[in-house]
Amino acid sequence: MNKSILAIATALILFTCSEAQKTTLEQKDVFNETQIKESMIKALEWQEAHPIFALHPSDWTNGAYYTGVARAHNTTKNMMYMAALKNQAVKNNWNTFKRLHHADDVAISYSYLYVAENEKRRNFADLEPTKQFLDAHLYEDNNWKDGTNKSKEDKTILWWWCDALFMAPPVINLYAKQTEQPKYLDEMHKYYMETYNRLYDKEEKLFARDMRFVWKGNDNDRKEPNGKKVFWSRGNGWVIGGLALLLEDMPEDYEHRGFYVNLFKEMAAKILEIQPEDGLWRTSLLSPESYDHGEVSGSGFHTFALAWGINNGLLDKKYTPAVKKAWKALAASQHEDGRVGWVQNIGAFPEPASVDSWQNFGTGAFLLAGSEILKLE
Amino acid sequence: MNKSILAIATALILFTCSEAQKTTLEQKDVFNETQIKESMIKALEWQEAHPIFALHPSDWTNGAYYTGVARAHNTTKNMMYMAALKNQAVKNNWNTFKRLHHADDVAISYSYLYVAENEKRRNFADLEPTKQFLDAHLYEDNNWKDGTNKSKEDKTILWWWCDALFMAPPVINLYAKQTEQPKYLDEMHKYYMETYNRLYDKEEKLFARDMRFVWKGNDNDRKEPNGKKVFWSRGNGWVIGGLALLLEDMPEDYEHRGFYVNLFKEMAAKILEIQPEDGLWRTSLLSPESYDHGEVSGSGFHTFALAWGINNGLLDKKYTPAVKKAWKALAASQHEDGRVGWVQNIGAFPEPASVDSWQNFGTGAFLLAGSEILKLE
Amino acid sequence: MNKSILAIATALILFTCSEAQKTTLEQKDVFNETQIKESMIKALEWQEAHPIFALHPSDWTNGAYYTGVARAHNTTKNMMYMAALKNQAVKNNWNTFKRLHHADDVAISYSYLYVAENEKRRNFADLEPTKQFLDAHLYEDNNWKDGTNKSKEDKTILWWWCDALFMAPPVINLYAKQTEQPKYLDEMHKYYMETYNRLYDKEEKLFARDMRFVWKGNDNDRKEPNGKKVFWSRGNGWVIGGLALLLEDMPEDYEHRGFYVNLFKEMAAKILEIQPEDGLWRTSLLSPESYDHGEVSGSGFHTFALAWGINNGLLDKKYTPAVKKAWKALAASQHEDGRVGWVQNIGAFPEPASVDSWQNFGTGAFLLAGSEILKLE
Repeated sequence: MNKSILAIATALILFTCSEAQKTTLEQKDVFNETQIKESMIKALEWQEAHPIFALHPSDWTNGAYYTGVARAHNTTKNMMYMAALKNQAVKNNWNTFKRLHHADDVAISYSYLYVAENEKRRNFADLEPTKQFLDAHLYEDNNWKDGTNKSKEDKTILWWWCDALFMAPPVINLYAKQTEQPKYLDEMHKYYMETYNRLYDKEEKLFARDMRFVWKGNDNDRKEPNGKKVFWSRGNGWVIGGLALLLEDMPEDYEHRGFYVNLFKEMAAKILEIQPEDGLWRTSLLSPESYDHGEVSGSGFHTFALAWGINNGLLDKKYTPAVKKAWKALAASQHEDGRVGWVQNIGAFPEPASVDSWQNFGTGAFLLAGSEILKLE
Repeated sequence: MNKSILAIATALILFTCSEAQKTTLEQKDVFNETQIKESMIKALEWQEAHPIFALHPSDWTNGAYYTGVARAHNTTKNMMYMAALKNQAVKNNWNTFKRLHHADDVAISYSYLYVAENEKRRNFADLEPTKQFLDAHLYEDNNWKDGTNKSKEDKTILWWWCDALFMAPPVINLYAKQTEQPKYLDEMHKYYMETYNRLYDKEEKLFARDMRFVWKGNDNDRKEPNGKKVFWSRGNGWVIGGLALLLEDMPEDYEHRGFYVNLFKEMAAKILEIQPEDGLWRTSLLSPESYDHGEVSGSGFHTFALAWGINNGLLDKKYTPAVKKAWKALAASQHEDGRVGWVQNIGAFPEPASVDSWQNFGTGAFLLAGSEILKLE
Repeated sequence: MNKSILAIATALILFTCSEAQKTTLEQKDVFNETQIKESMIKALEWQEAHPIFALHPSDWTNGAYYTGVARAHNTTKNMMYMAALKNQAVKNNWNTFKRLHHADDVAISYSYLYVAENEKRRNFADLEPTKQFLDAHLYEDNNWKDGTNKSKEDKTILWWWCDALFMAPPVINLYAKQTEQPKYLDEMHKYYMETYNRLYDKEEKLFARDMRFVWKGNDNDRKEPNGKKVFWSRGNGWVIGGLALLLEDMPEDYEHRGFYVNLFKEMAAKILEIQPEDGLWRTSLLSPESYDHGEVSGSGFHTFALAWGINNGLLDKKYTPAVKKAWKALAASQHEDGRVGWVQNIGAFPEPASVDSWQNFGTGAFLLAGSEILKLE
């Protein structure tokens, strides 16, 4: 009898107070489609309410963020993404940022090209500034290209740092596709190969961030405490994430497509191999113990790339558990209010992050990952 | 004895967990003044955090939204509305959108005129772009006016679609009042009559959206599945909402005021007659079964107009239950976070909405409705 | 036995529902560092989501707000503040507002100077408009300086109202420091003395807002109902808050530093003396009964100044209880959603506030206060 009273009281409690718990339980179902979409929209809403940039709203940080927004729209068709894309495009007056020799400054055009293709209103998008940037960037001389800028960082090729392979190539590729001008793609390939030949480590199957991190076999070679080379997680995330974007829009019969497919698969295999147990990559890929916590921007790009590879038949199902483990951990990095935490600050090599550290490009990586997680299975 | 323990336990539960329930109960009191004001402010805050437009922040979508914000300020004097109004006006540099022949592109000036009248700082508002637009729009030729644009949609009058009667006439009317230049009002009336004569169905007492929906008595006439004419809810909402705005500021002794009063009453009677049981009008007014769910933008405008009519002595008290039923349903369309859902997307004829679909002009319609609901009784 | 069931049931309830209560309890610990920081960030987030200004985003209202944001960043290094500072600076294109003779219109430059000093990216900040403003403001004639503007408010000196001592002097002082040009500081001192000599009441140790409130010994002298002079809380908050900012960046060996230190101490002693029991100053400092409720903008500036004085060794520990009492009350003025309430609207003399009244400069005062409260002890 007493037991039954206790049972009733308990039932009452569970019933009355269950609303709060339900939310928590639902959030743990990180592969529920509705839940993924809600997490992504919360990330968007938080980021839109917390604008940030390095130098200008049209710079590469928003470039990477709005690339994620564009892909999220592509998957979900939720007009909240398109509203944000159009809003920033009009605010920026469809301009790239200003340094025509700098790949960073055209990253924003990925979002402009996406809007132009997917917003059917006539004369809405203005792609003239993008065209002007690309023409100058690819076809005019500058002191990186011609090697007259001999700084200690060896800025003697157009894309002398690996991040650049995310910033410009997918934009050039998409522009070539939309305008049906393959010459842009050929020019892109030329510069891509320069960077590949210089920064890709064929043994480790990872990119050095720039020449400072390529070993020359002397005492100045930068080593991690464990004696390994320094391979930056986000730096390689830029490359493999950029490869997924490139392959998405590159013609199936493009003569050099095989090169990109092969590079993508090589890197993917390596990224899979070194994934930490909890799902998130450390900022120093071969020295996870340097800062032994997951970092979300690099991990977001890796997760996006691997999931894209699965969804597009380039990677087999053995990648699926890795991708799911990564998304579970990415989702856990999101704060209750939508903020995506554990993002390494702007930088050029491995540095630590924290539960509170955020950047718009980290949110972009989260959205990219989510946009492909939604397509799994 | 056991019963008393159970009673105590139950009381404890109810006491401890009652906070969450209280919120829900309060929200059900949709006619409580504080509650209405909170719903309206939440709608404003959500919309300000989710900017959207068709082509530009100064276009008709914000025009309709900020007209709602202006009316909400007029009723409540809550400075949050005025802050939003000023913010967008300064961001837009007090410009209309750019197509001088297009009524849509001056809708935003309703908010500019409102700020100019109600913000007493000297030299704050700049109404020169509005003046220039109106002068060109009303007094210069264009290929709609002169009939040289003979498209299939019969764009051979200035305001060839019924939405236009919301976009331009209230602005012209308010400008005439503020600048004490009745000539603008006369010119407005001339073009209003053109549209009325072409699109108003004197039998149904509703407006066709444009000539595509006016029956010519041949096989091409567009019919709903039930054989009725196509009368779009939002289209007629634009007209009757615009009429309320017009009558609000039109001189009592204006020679054609009677025409507008009569038209307003005729349409109001029809809108009342066809109100669905749950309070919200369907997108196709005479074929509710086409998309059998309430749509909030049209319903918001209807509710605003009817409530305005009651509050201003043009409609009698028999409209009150209809208006209350409509507001109750409108309030239920608002999400917990403030978003006003069930808004049909940008369009030109009946299409479905959904619980999640939203647009800034839907929020504007909600605010317009609320601004008059607050004045009931 | 029955008692044990009740105990278990009660424990269950307390366990199950304790989450909501925990939040409330935590919020009561207003001197917990984490809690202060969270309150400040919530204030920032709310204010960023509710932009407001008098005439333009670059005007004095944002000037005061972003001064608070800058000081909050200085104390906490939370990049959310820096993101907001950079965002508004770039939106304003680093421009001051436009009236070169008006101290109000350069207040925004405090935030620009702060960004320039603390954001290490090269060529990011553009201080040219600030330089041009200061040069015109200090070294060119205008009809306030030369006394040709003889309005009833005696606008016959450059800074004829006490608010000006917050708007321009800290900017000039910081510019002189950053550019190592002491001549700007000397020029600032010249105009400061004009205002001091005219508006400072050496008996009451408070500033009249402007000449309308300086007694001339005739029947037109403005008196509070209790026969006292009118000393506006926010007006004096502008002065003493501005003094703390000035002293922060003024060279230790500046020849007139003693004057500012002395003035600061005199005013601080008076402010302490007249602090109401509940911690918050009334809008009319010597007639608290006129509007007998705490006002947050003035109180925020007073709290900032007193706490800064303690933290910098100018005020002794007897000020600490007053400052803590004030912060406790300021924290209680913040709404659950982050809004800082009880802020008197834009004005020029004592007027009432309300729980809902807010302004960006009130949020700025709150952040200024919090930035020094964090450094106490």
